[in-house]
Amino acid sequence: MILISDVIRAKRDGRELSPAEIAAFIDGYTSGAVPDYQASALLMAIVWRGMGDAELAAWTDAMLRSGEVIDLSDVPGYKVDKHSTGGVGDKVSLPLAPLAAEAGLRVPMISGRGLGHTGGTLDKLEAIPGFRTDLSVARFRELVDTLNVGLIGQTAEIAPADKKLYALRDVTATVECIPLIASSIMSKKLAEGIDGLVLDIKTGSGAFMARRADALELAKTMVAIGRAAGRDVVARITDMSQPIGRWVGNALEVIESVEVLQGRGPADLRALTIELTAEMLVLAGSDATLDAGRARAARILDSGAALERFERVVEAQGGDPRALTDRSRLPGFRSRLDVAAAADGFVGEMDCAEIGRASLMIGAGRARKEDAIDPGVGIEVHARVGDRVEAGAPLFTLCYNEDREVVAAARRLRAAVTIVDEQAPVPALFGERLG
Amino acid sequence: MILISDVIRAKRDGRELSPAEIAAFIDGYTSGAVPDYQASALLMAIVWRGMGDAELAAWTDAMLRSGEVIDLSDVPGYKVDKHSTGGVGDKVSLPLAPLAAEAGLRVPMISGRGLGHTGGTLDKLEAIPGFRTDLSVARFRELVDTLNVGLIGQTAEIAPADKKLYALRDVTATVECIPLIASSIMSKKLAEGIDGLVLDIKTGSGAFMARRADALELAKTMVAIGRAAGRDVVARITDMSQPIGRWVGNALEVIESVEVLQGRGPADLRALTIELTAEMLVLAGSDATLDAGRARAARILDSGAALERFERVVEAQGGDPRALTDRSRLPGFRSRLDVAAAADGFVGEMDCAEIGRASLMIGAGRARKEDAIDPGVGIEVHARVGDRVEAGAPLFTLCYNEDREVVAAARRLRAAVTIVDEQAPVPALFGERLG
Repeated sequence: MILISDVIRAKRDGRELSPAEIAAFIDGYTSGAVPDYQASALLMAIVWRGMGDAELAAWTDAMLRSGEVIDLSDVPGYKVDKHSTGGVGDKVSLPLAPLAAEAGLRVPMISGRGLGHTGGTLDKLEAIPGFRTDLSVARFRELVDTLNVGLIGQTAEIAPADKKLYALRDVTATVECIPLIASSIMSKKLAEGIDGLVLDIKTGSGAFMARRADALELAKTMVAIGRAAGRDVVARITDMSQPIGRWVGNALEVIESVEVLQGRGPADLRALTIELTAEMLVLAGSDATLDAGRARAARILDSGAALERFERVVEAQGGDPRALTDRSRLPGFRSRLDVAAAADGFVGEMDCAEIGRASLMIGAGRARKEDAIDPGVGIEVHARVGDRVEAGAPLFTLCYNEDREVVAAARRLRAAVTIVDEQAPVPALFGERLG
Repeated sequence: MILISDVIRAKRDGRELSPAEIAAFIDGYTSGAVPDYQASALLMAIVWRGMGDAELAAWTDAMLRSGEVIDLSDVPGYKVDKHSTGGVGDKVSLPLAPLAAEAGLRVPMISGRGLGHTGGTLDKLEAIPGFRTDLSVARFRELVDTLNVGLIGQTAEIAPADKKLYALRDVTATVECIPLIASSIMSKKLAEGIDGLVLDIKTGSGAFMARRADALELAKTMVAIGRAAGRDVVARITDMSQPIGRWVGNALEVIESVEVLQGRGPADLRALTIELTAEMLVLAGSDATLDAGRARAARILDSGAALERFERVVEAQGGDPRALTDRSRLPGFRSRLDVAAAADGFVGEMDCAEIGRASLMIGAGRARKEDAIDPGVGIEVHARVGDRVEAGAPLFTLCYNEDREVVAAARRLRAAVTIVDEQAPVPALFGERLG
């Protein structure tokens, strides 16, 4: 008989928990036998003492086993997903999923919604009229089997322990803890029935892990969890010190994603899409080197085949595929407001999270889970770090429907960018690779 | 508007909380607006980060103000209490309270019950037939006014925040934390309406703070809280590596207390009673030096006046005063079992908490709050550390009514004492003095 107060005491005193102690806690918490007040005390003790690799593997496994684990073993081929820790303008999943599927990989992708300054893949997909992300697991499996890719949201059955713990962490100041963050993400990803996983760990002012050292630690921890669970995992540290691409906002990001699928689009978004797809191809053994994978991914994008694949996916998931190439079929905005540079000079550092918060103020994101979003609105980002600008030239354009917060959003955007006299170094898009 | 999750985050990150943040938490927790799961996260963060002096003063003050604060300002004279952190055979409050009252001090004493291996003053008083400790605050004030002393238990109105927090700490592994222990005790003591407080901080194998460094830290912390609240406070570190006096058990400890009030009784119990009373007299300014206070206390004990005072208090609180000098009027025991030394030698170290647990097994204490106790039973302690003993001579005598656990209790007692070849140093009764 394991007493939960003894489990809390052990962690409080810095002892590594046994798999039996971890299972007793996670199972009891999932069933309701362990109350929230014991869970939050244990969570704070974990924030304090951390978790070792073996402990974290057992913790993640217990969370994973608290709910349904999707079994794709009857679907032939290599099942691989990409997960990003999120940021501003990060729409990579939209072009990447059909691209990887077109390259022959099986992509069972379960995504989340935007919260706070970060956007979410589900919200972007749902900007496509009719697109449904709440499919049954049976239908999801069917899509992965027939189209190589399915794009859904987390079901209530996947990792319920994580759902409960996450809600508790949110109100007990126990969110900012790398082992808890890593196990939360990985428990959901491992429930997808994947063979391999490419992690895109963002760092910089728009990332959840603003400091590079934290991003590296998170990457290391997530790779270790994935390895312990017998999966192939690679992690890339990538830059989030400015928005990805030129657009922030849901329908606007769909349009930009389609540009990439047409072999066009902004350089950073295209490069990220190709690089992460190449990592997936190498994990799967489809390509021997990243260079070969990159070349193949670029070829498919330029051929337009990935866009066709995306149109089929959109149709299969209830959406209007014509909306991908006919902007008038997507939700839109009525008004525009430019935010101009106050002086001549160079674009210095950006507070990228503030750009995300400005987009949220005009309705492109949500402050709380229950808030509604306006899929048509967003921000056009004209300035990139290191660019030369003249006073009065637009740095951003707010594209909005409701006037109410637009002036405050413009003020926020103006304050998010510094104009400096000497050209700042342009941040490198790709950082460390762990795997 | 103070968000409790921000308060938790601040403490998690090692920041000192402001009085406003502390009041928001304690007031909200008392009213039920702050849920247990936020409270337990904050408690664990406090175990981790500790609390500074100013912070702890504000925390204690908020707990104190969560309920009724007894106002004795209309009672003339110096109001002073003694508090012990508890142990085995610690009946000092019983002779001390009437002694200090007889010396002219006002003694508003609010005591607790025994739990685990430690006994409680309330249980000992209630071994006197008819004695009631659940008096109203009005009656308590009247007793302090007319007899100089009242002896009651904590009412539901005093420091309800502490009651709630203590119950939560018990199940979240957040009991063992010096700032939380110190503020819990002090919030209740400061609610008594006292001018001064003498703290008896026990250390050794039978104490809550077994390690001397912890006892010193607790003493320092409690003195600082009392000072910050504008009270006179002195703390004494005293030995709890063996039971105090010769008897452990409720009615048995009443008998031994009366011996002290008759100018007799075991040396350690008499010395503690005199020393702590002298500290009270010096705090009050009644005596200029501890020596003068000790001499006065000894004189009063030897005169029998303090026993007379105790008889009046017992009568005023509904008890039978004849029971103090007529043992047949107290609850008793039916059977005795000696626990003998297994070898010739000297009494070495004792596991004093184990002696307390043995007394609990035969009914003299309680494992859980809701357990009933048998006031008549207990243990006679024949051996003291450093004594020479012969094989077969009794170390303890179990005095019991129910056979069920007596053999196991005897086994526990035997294991609690080591017999050694060389005489161990006798532990000094009095240690450091802080104040």
